[in-house]
Amino acid sequence: MNQPKSEPDMESLRQRAGVLMEALPYLRQFRGHTIVVKYGGAAMLDVGLRTEVLKDIVLLEHVGLRPVLVHGGGPDISETMRRLGKEPEFVNGQRVTDAETVEIAQMVLTGKTNPDLVAAIHQQGANAIGLSGKDGAMVVARKRSGAADLGYVGEVAEVNPGLVQGLISQGFIPVIAPIAAGPGGETLNVNADHFAGRIAGPLQANKLIVLTDVGGVLGNPEDPDSLISELAAGNAREMIADGRIASGMVPKVEACLDALAAGVGQCHIIDGRLPHALLMELLTDVGIGTMVVAE
Amino acid sequence: MNQPKSEPDMESLRQRAGVLMEALPYLRQFRGHTIVVKYGGAAMLDVGLRTEVLKDIVLLEHVGLRPVLVHGGGPDISETMRRLGKEPEFVNGQRVTDAETVEIAQMVLTGKTNPDLVAAIHQQGANAIGLSGKDGAMVVARKRSGAADLGYVGEVAEVNPGLVQGLISQGFIPVIAPIAAGPGGETLNVNADHFAGRIAGPLQANKLIVLTDVGGVLGNPEDPDSLISELAAGNAREMIADGRIASGMVPKVEACLDALAAGVGQCHIIDGRLPHALLMELLTDVGIGTMVVAE
Amino acid sequence: MNQPKSEPDMESLRQRAGVLMEALPYLRQFRGHTIVVKYGGAAMLDVGLRTEVLKDIVLLEHVGLRPVLVHGGGPDISETMRRLGKEPEFVNGQRVTDAETVEIAQMVLTGKTNPDLVAAIHQQGANAIGLSGKDGAMVVARKRSGAADLGYVGEVAEVNPGLVQGLISQGFIPVIAPIAAGPGGETLNVNADHFAGRIAGPLQANKLIVLTDVGGVLGNPEDPDSLISELAAGNAREMIADGRIASGMVPKVEACLDALAAGVGQCHIIDGRLPHALLMELLTDVGIGTMVVAE
Amino acid sequence: MNQPKSEPDMESLRQRAGVLMEALPYLRQFRGHTIVVKYGGAAMLDVGLRTEVLKDIVLLEHVGLRPVLVHGGGPDISETMRRLGKEPEFVNGQRVTDAETVEIAQMVLTGKTNPDLVAAIHQQGANAIGLSGKDGAMVVARKRSGAADLGYVGEVAEVNPGLVQGLISQGFIPVIAPIAAGPGGETLNVNADHFAGRIAGPLQANKLIVLTDVGGVLGNPEDPDSLISELAAGNAREMIADGRIASGMVPKVEACLDALAAGVGQCHIIDGRLPHALLMELLTDVGIGTMVVAE
Amino acid sequence: MNQPKSEPDMESLRQRAGVLMEALPYLRQFRGHTIVVKYGGAAMLDVGLRTEVLKDIVLLEHVGLRPVLVHGGGPDISETMRRLGKEPEFVNGQRVTDAETVEIAQMVLTGKTNPDLVAAIHQQGANAIGLSGKDGAMVVARKRSGAADLGYVGEVAEVNPGLVQGLISQGFIPVIAPIAAGPGGETLNVNADHFAGRIAGPLQANKLIVLTDVGGVLGNPEDPDSLISELAAGNAREMIADGRIASGMVPKVEACLDALAAGVGQCHIIDGRLPHALLMELLTDVGIGTMVVAE
Amino acid sequence: MNQPKSEPDMESLRQRAGVLMEALPYLRQFRGHTIVVKYGGAAMLDVGLRTEVLKDIVLLEHVGLRPVLVHGGGPDISETMRRLGKEPEFVNGQRVTDAETVEIAQMVLTGKTNPDLVAAIHQQGANAIGLSGKDGAMVVARKRSGAADLGYVGEVAEVNPGLVQGLISQGFIPVIAPIAAGPGGETLNVNADHFAGRIAGPLQANKLIVLTDVGGVLGNPEDPDSLISELAAGNAREMIADGRIASGMVPKVEACLDALAAGVGQCHIIDGRLPHALLMELLTDVGIGTMVVAE
Repeated sequence: MNQPKSEPDMESLRQRAGVLMEALPYLRQFRGHTIVVKYGGAAMLDVGLRTEVLKDIVLLEHVGLRPVLVHGGGPDISETMRRLGKEPEFVNGQRVTDAETVEIAQMVLTGKTNPDLVAAIHQQGANAIGLSGKDGAMVVARKRSGAADLGYVGEVAEVNPGLVQGLISQGFIPVIAPIAAGPGGETLNVNADHFAGRIAGPLQANKLIVLTDVGGVLGNPEDPDSLISELAAGNAREMIADGRIASGMVPKVEACLDALAAGVGQCHIIDGRLPHALLMELLTDVGIGTMVVAE
Repeated sequence: MNQPKSEPDMESLRQRAGVLMEALPYLRQFRGHTIVVKYGGAAMLDVGLRTEVLKDIVLLEHVGLRPVLVHGGGPDISETMRRLGKEPEFVNGQRVTDAETVEIAQMVLTGKTNPDLVAAIHQQGANAIGLSGKDGAMVVARKRSGAADLGYVGEVAEVNPGLVQGLISQGFIPVIAPIAAGPGGETLNVNADHFAGRIAGPLQANKLIVLTDVGGVLGNPEDPDSLISELAAGNAREMIADGRIASGMVPKVEACLDALAAGVGQCHIIDGRLPHALLMELLTDVGIGTMVVAE
Repeated sequence: MNQPKSEPDMESLRQRAGVLMEALPYLRQFRGHTIVVKYGGAAMLDVGLRTEVLKDIVLLEHVGLRPVLVHGGGPDISETMRRLGKEPEFVNGQRVTDAETVEIAQMVLTGKTNPDLVAAIHQQGANAIGLSGKDGAMVVARKRSGAADLGYVGEVAEVNPGLVQGLISQGFIPVIAPIAAGPGGETLNVNADHFAGRIAGPLQANKLIVLTDVGGVLGNPEDPDSLISELAAGNAREMIADGRIASGMVPKVEACLDALAAGVGQCHIIDGRLPHALLMELLTDVGIGTMVVAE
Repeated sequence: MNQPKSEPDMESLRQRAGVLMEALPYLRQFRGHTIVVKYGGAAMLDVGLRTEVLKDIVLLEHVGLRPVLVHGGGPDISETMRRLGKEPEFVNGQRVTDAETVEIAQMVLTGKTNPDLVAAIHQQGANAIGLSGKDGAMVVARKRSGAADLGYVGEVAEVNPGLVQGLISQGFIPVIAPIAAGPGGETLNVNADHFAGRIAGPLQANKLIVLTDVGGVLGNPEDPDSLISELAAGNAREMIADGRIASGMVPKVEACLDALAAGVGQCHIIDGRLPHALLMELLTDVGIGTMVVAE
Repeated sequence: MNQPKSEPDMESLRQRAGVLMEALPYLRQFRGHTIVVKYGGAAMLDVGLRTEVLKDIVLLEHVGLRPVLVHGGGPDISETMRRLGKEPEFVNGQRVTDAETVEIAQMVLTGKTNPDLVAAIHQQGANAIGLSGKDGAMVVARKRSGAADLGYVGEVAEVNPGLVQGLISQGFIPVIAPIAAGPGGETLNVNADHFAGRIAGPLQANKLIVLTDVGGVLGNPEDPDSLISELAAGNAREMIADGRIASGMVPKVEACLDALAAGVGQCHIIDGRLPHALLMELLTDVGIGTMVVAE
Repeated sequence: MNQPKSEPDMESLRQRAGVLMEALPYLRQFRGHTIVVKYGGAAMLDVGLRTEVLKDIVLLEHVGLRPVLVHGGGPDISETMRRLGKEPEFVNGQRVTDAETVEIAQMVLTGKTNPDLVAAIHQQGANAIGLSGKDGAMVVARKRSGAADLGYVGEVAEVNPGLVQGLISQGFIPVIAPIAAGPGGETLNVNADHFAGRIAGPLQANKLIVLTDVGGVLGNPEDPDSLISELAAGNAREMIADGRIASGMVPKVEACLDALAAGVGQCHIIDGRLPHALLMELLTDVGIGTMVVAE
């Protein structure tokens, strides 16, 4: 850092210091805290946003937080399926996942999305490690039960947090694909929101942050100005039941509810399209998106 | 282990004990030793052999050795390429690897072969973790230089052994796909034999075992009875230079030479088609294949 | 281990591997487990058997178990007494132990049997340490109360397991003579079976194995084919009460009952005259002798 | 941190994030580094500046640096002397320090300035501990030799860094008064600049920062625009010799030279009157004051 | 210790050995125990006695005890106040402490008495560290409530024992001035007896010893022969209530009562004027002063 | 220690404190030091002296030293031989040791003398453990070569200090019988003085103390007043060569010479018949016996 530096000017000094000082209470509060980030949507797919988000993640690790990423990978899976001559099929918005599909999903998530993210984080100067639920049997899944049989779609049955906790205490940023083995060793694809919501508790995370492509939970899905800043768990459950929270937002809110129930103190759904949304949420007084809170 | 057990008979007792006692000096010698195994060929592709090899690996871990697996994945890559409408191309037996091909290779190796092996080892009762060279920047590669430009084919430039050493000391069996990032973050495909030979030294491994589909290094490739039990490094280099060691055996012998030069004491090329070849090589007086030795 | 090895042959390979593979679930189960072995009878007195038993003990230590030996020494004590001009005397099969006799017993057990075993284990390549109950006050005894006053015969009053646990965690095999000090520092001779049965619990042993010179507990002492493979604690107590279990077998069964009551999961009385009885019991599916089990 | 937060606005988000992102490479570089700060002048005496400097110190500790403060206390000493009826006396700008004066200096430095700083740091939310060279014999001094006999003025003879290193590894910010005992236990007053320069090396500090009341080292003391941004050690020694560096700036530059010679990589003299000078120097691209560098 | 030694003589040998042997059970009992010593009165003010007491303290540390000193400093404060032109004022024997007075008290206690003791202990060969309640916020105080408003006089509100416990486990002797910060950071002066009595429990001290200038608690203050060797807590409270325990003895007895209530097993008030009173109390059968005991 | 204590008296206080204070510099010097004591002669055989010596040993352990005892056992061996009908035989004062004799020596030393000492130390309140050179192969011996073949008489060939160092760091007092195994596992009897002298270096002992039954090394063996207080190694060698040091004193002086050569700083031969000779030597200014010193 011995390069010539720019000349100071008084007003700029005060402004810069102000930002750093504002971060102080948050840094104090979050030091050493594990933060599970569900990473997906525009923040992952848009090349420019993705670089900014990964820079944020690396900054957070450098100031003493311990981020854990769980990523999805939707469009890539469908695209690879089509290239392999297989038409994606959905029932009620959920992918029908036969044996061949789950193999493709695993191949794309753990063989493409995941190593690309790991390499990109290294480019930003931190140490990442790619994992799936299979590694160290970190997550054991079972077939998801429900109305429709969706095939090899799983839900989290058991979490063994030791491997991930060991890696974060050594300074690695775990990047996790939501794939896990079932009891017989078969591969299962787990919804990434649910996966993140379920591991946050066993990892003793202090925060769950779900990145999404809208401003947060809206009171009226038609009205982007109807953002709900703070949403009580009971209200959230009602809004899911009566359909006010619908489609892709459902698993995100469910992830928050799962994590809250498992003792994770703070659960946020924030707008991943905003520049540096993570940094703003964690280190400034700026409020972004919806915080789901216990009653 | 309280189930009814079979009746003993004197002769059988002596024979069984004999096998266990024969293993004693090897167990004593190898306790806590790191053993890098290059895993591929029939021992990986044949379902029956594969189960036996993984059982051996797990037994070795249970009696105190520390196996590290590096696997290839050749046929799967070509098959997936063809399904994606891309014809594999080879120059002098080496795959021409354009940007799309290396993406497919990574996808198959880290997204299919690797997690399948990890799950299969868990089924046998040990704890495995899937890695590639990108994880924790364990291996940093550079484009392989040579006569023909083969594209995104890499060679090992730097090894950071801390991650793997930490994991084996915690009882995990690392299963490693020979994929790594280059200096600019680009994905490179590394020959699995070379990858294994290059990491053995930095991992402070005591042994490198390369599984192959022939009996070992043959004095006369036409004559399966011309097996060379012990091959001095100098002779090995001559035999590569004059073509007596050729095609697929070349990188296997080079891996042994690399590992020897980096201080790995014992380097073997053994016949992975033999039942329990690893167990025999490590825990009995039975000699299998070729041992490459320093002069 | 670089010596020329023998040629493999397919059938032999499968058989050898079979024995090693059969050992796998036992190795997995017993890794790091403490196994208290009451060592005596033919297995200690017969020179050939003794070497085989000690080889077994060393093998067990090398594959990760933690054996603790408690030995007796009967015939040697009587012989030394006679050489010193003192006639051994017994009441109901128990040695009358006056002050001079207990000195001789201590001298023989800790000054002859014990160091000979320690040296013999070192010859087999493991690290042993000779102890008696006096060392580190590991066992504090009191005079055994009962019908006849047998003199300086003790029973275990208190166990301080720290010394032995420290030594086994450092890789030593403790070899313990059943001698202890009473509350006033006087020397007391404790029955070796009882001694072993009483220390197994405080040492947090997972198994107690009592070697004896018959096949195990017999339903009919006259009929060697009446071996009871599994004996419930309640039945064992009845058989002692009604005399079906008699003389030297009584303290062996009592040792198992004591250890079971103190939380030792598996207690076996096995035939020390069988070659490699310990190895068979611990590492194969072969059933030997009698397992005493909680109801 | 659940309080209502302000509304975001795009431009402000980018600016705030920019400041935090600019800090990233510095945070990465300095994490876990020990920074010795010589604290004095306006930055200590002006109430407003003092609060800002201590906030900076606490922020630095919270983001992973390890600050160590060495403070002076000049005007307070003179004032207390006068109140006690003793007129301060100076020879060539250095305080004549008789036995009574050194007692007063110690009383003011360790009994007033030091505990006030410790309490003020606690008010900002970090953990401080007040020390002098006497504590744990951290600094042993000897009488300073020189032209004039200045009495109980010391120079650092020996540094025992263990106490301070232990405290910083436990998260305390050491605040050190430049008082030490001589070989016979007598109290000696050490120049605070020299004290800081001498302990930085043994503490294995990575940086020494001397706060002063001018912009840095000036090429022409009459011209505030003649600031020298980077000053080679050899030039520094020449400028001291020929008087271009004079009076109060001499010990500051000498402190940097001492620390450089003892292996401290980066030594800065910066303007403590600038708001958040420490933060700017450490965490932004803004250049402040003079860096003294090895040739 | 290779210097010529004196000639032995039989009788002297037996006597010397007797003293050392008498110390044995006490050394065994107190090894590793924390002993809080309230240090003041003649034992601190008389130069000869002071050296002897500090030698005792150092001897105790060398034989494995862990002494913690809390010191007062009364006469010095008044003297410095007068030199600064301020007349000390007392109400009911307690110093009226305005803002200026508490500054002077802190300056004298932490800037004069404390560092002098630290340096004197180093001269005796042990490692001391000077502290006040402000360091590491070890003691947080609040204004003492009561009949008369005495100004900046505090009482212990909260004790954070980690800093002191860490230092004693590293072999330092903490020397503590009874100054602490209040909730707003203001300086408060705490009675040294009370300070010692209140920290003994949180420090998990095994003994509190209060040095005083009389023989102990007297049944009749007029009669020095009316010493009470053992005083039950209930009786002590009665004697304070009815005035038989009065003036300076009150806080000393209260300190013992506080410490007893917080689990400190042994609390003594002893005559600091006796040569080596501490050594006698701790390491011999000689009884000195008053032991306050729980009912 | 709450029992009523005796009344103090001023003069007695000063004298007692004087003894304790005199011990201070020695306690400081020897804290944590390993002291090998060759224990034998009257100090072991006389019941009253033995109790006093063991009390000294326990006191030393309690004040922080780490004593290691090596004991002989001469008369007992001869007596037991005679009782077993075997006449002891000596050549040049050294016992002729056939196979039967060495068995008896081992039996007496490790089976009688050793456990009796261990139990006696426990009676004094410390934790002892009995060992011989066979335990943990702590000492490996070889047959002593020399003019006469003395049979199974050994000399120290190799020392493995780990076991003993581990035990003393856990607070045990090792009590060692000078018996060891030879390369083939055969039992060898080693002179106890030589055994002590040879292990002191590898144990990193700071002192070797040999107890004997005379005042020390005498200039004239006929004249008890000709004690040599300090004897240079060169002179010692000369005196052995010319016979001025003769018979039983020879191995004692050789032990000191061996230990000196192996880096043990202080080697003493002292009169074990003096009451508390060890305590006097270690903790007072009284000089006892002969110190052998390097030139």
